[in-house]
Amino acid sequence: MFLPEDQAFMARALALAERALYTTTPNPRVGCVIVKDGETVGEGWHVRAGEAHAEVHALREAGARARGATAYVTLEPCSHFGRTPPCAGALINAGISRVVCAMQDPNPLVSGRGLQMLREAGIAVSCNLLAEEARRLNEGFVARMERGRPWLRIKTAASLDGRTALADGQSQWITSAEARADVHHWRARSCAILTGSGTVLADNPRLNVRGIETERQPLRIVIDSELRTPPDAAVLEHGNTLVVTTSNDAARRDPLLAKGCEVLQLPSTNEHVDLAALMTELGRRGLNEVLTEAGARLNGALIQAGLADALLLYMAPCLLGHAARGMFALPELSGLDDKTSLRIDRVDQIGPDLRISARF
Amino acid sequence: MFLPEDQAFMARALALAERALYTTTPNPRVGCVIVKDGETVGEGWHVRAGEAHAEVHALREAGARARGATAYVTLEPCSHFGRTPPCAGALINAGISRVVCAMQDPNPLVSGRGLQMLREAGIAVSCNLLAEEARRLNEGFVARMERGRPWLRIKTAASLDGRTALADGQSQWITSAEARADVHHWRARSCAILTGSGTVLADNPRLNVRGIETERQPLRIVIDSELRTPPDAAVLEHGNTLVVTTSNDAARRDPLLAKGCEVLQLPSTNEHVDLAALMTELGRRGLNEVLTEAGARLNGALIQAGLADALLLYMAPCLLGHAARGMFALPELSGLDDKTSLRIDRVDQIGPDLRISARF
Repeated sequence: MFLPEDQAFMARALALAERALYTTTPNPRVGCVIVKDGETVGEGWHVRAGEAHAEVHALREAGARARGATAYVTLEPCSHFGRTPPCAGALINAGISRVVCAMQDPNPLVSGRGLQMLREAGIAVSCNLLAEEARRLNEGFVARMERGRPWLRIKTAASLDGRTALADGQSQWITSAEARADVHHWRARSCAILTGSGTVLADNPRLNVRGIETERQPLRIVIDSELRTPPDAAVLEHGNTLVVTTSNDAARRDPLLAKGCEVLQLPSTNEHVDLAALMTELGRRGLNEVLTEAGARLNGALIQAGLADALLLYMAPCLLGHAARGMFALPELSGLDDKTSLRIDRVDQIGPDLRISARF
Repeated sequence: MFLPEDQAFMARALALAERALYTTTPNPRVGCVIVKDGETVGEGWHVRAGEAHAEVHALREAGARARGATAYVTLEPCSHFGRTPPCAGALINAGISRVVCAMQDPNPLVSGRGLQMLREAGIAVSCNLLAEEARRLNEGFVARMERGRPWLRIKTAASLDGRTALADGQSQWITSAEARADVHHWRARSCAILTGSGTVLADNPRLNVRGIETERQPLRIVIDSELRTPPDAAVLEHGNTLVVTTSNDAARRDPLLAKGCEVLQLPSTNEHVDLAALMTELGRRGLNEVLTEAGARLNGALIQAGLADALLLYMAPCLLGHAARGMFALPELSGLDDKTSLRIDRVDQIGPDLRISARF
């Protein structure tokens, strides 16, 4: 059961959780607010893996005032010893009398155990308040827990008539400086940026976060069946790059290894990297959100394989015409019923451009 | 000089003007509010050409209370005898002491004369309040007055990847029933709906207003260089259709004439109808807003000829892929500087789809 004031405190806890948007991976973003007699006595959020959880920060601030207080947490408190002791135990020890959760732990193997531990200690527990907002904040973590692979967001930029480049490949720049700067927020929250060797060879992008304060750079992943990535590619600079291939050509692999990047050989499907196998591997490695910045072929293959979760489309108010390049290489459809359907999530104006967020 | 209360009264006058969105053509949409001692004593709007202007309706309602009152008019009152006597004279005769106008008459030959006539009669006159809103309400009329041709709005419907149909032409339906119903509002406010013979042959559309209360059906115009429109085409039903051609083939023309439509022969440019000449002719005929519902070639040709003013793009949240048909046939660009630029005007959600309004 929820009280009238619960929603505002949970919204605050969600806002606190969001402060760690760029840092918590592989852990979820979690916020906590402790309220005693209508007054906030403690706040906290989980900053990075291995450090204190949100509940511990908030309890520390609340001190003795936690006794008899209500704790608002954006995710079910953990019940197990990980790198830190279980938060459910900390809430019990502090004398918290009521816990309100936004959502249960998405891991079906542990979901509900934290709540049960609290209830068994005599604490009043209510769950599923602003649950949709809480899931969205951690859609990558939730996806990985529920299905074992990351949340895959495809970023692309196009004209109003759906063209990403001229016929000869010119694409710098279709969208505005504002739109290009906005992309860095999405990179910063991602665990990895995924591209293909075609994009590396054509545009030589760095794929790192620039112009934004962040202590963490996402992993850069290049899908490169034939190991065509040149050792001097910008995407290999400063390490933290994973090249995924089906090739075992040592002459091509060794210079990449010498640059400090990891080369992962995966099984192939029709001479290409098995994308589903790659996503499972990325899930196994603890990657929550993956942002794809690739060309029409890789994007199309990810969509066709059913691996795409969201589309982040920057649309510039211009027309490039028929001859220009299209957004997604997808097989020719025999009927409109076979189209790939999405749902529009939101639309924002970014400088002169539109940013369309949609879900598959 | 404007008073603090002026803006709200002018906004009301604009709202009144908009009530006649579907009916005033070829006249502009005009509203009028008469205010005495802070109280509205008369309201009116111009309903249809040949009938009383907005000022006359409002003065009639105000009666003797118009003496010493302020009149808010969305367009400069006329100073000449047309099908009705000049409104400036009516305002003077009624004893109005102050007139606030949203904008001057856009016709450069008469602009300012109505205001001058009022000033010479000792009336205080202020102009250019909510002028942008007033221009937008009459963008077709303004365009025709200022440059002699209608305001041309290109309507199209596409997937998120900019595709209007499958490779084999299938396009029913990419957008939702809500989006398709919304189009009828735009048809109803238009003086004409423009299409090409290719669309007539492929889709056999009616291009009339359905599902909306309107007393006026727009003219339907088919651009048909070779007179390929079959006499039993739906677009010819119930008359009120103009077929524009470069052909003088009587064997093809006469069956169309027998169906009651007009056939207009215009000069050709590269074996196609000279589109600029057509627009000038439509302006001469008093058409304010023209809505184009055509295929990629005619739309592309209108854009290339610099005749397109606005884009009304219904975007469905789906992907159709590379093989599907594009939005606009435009010549291949040699550089991104040559792209066709627009400005986003507004974006609305219509059912599951987006409606993007942009201006060239």
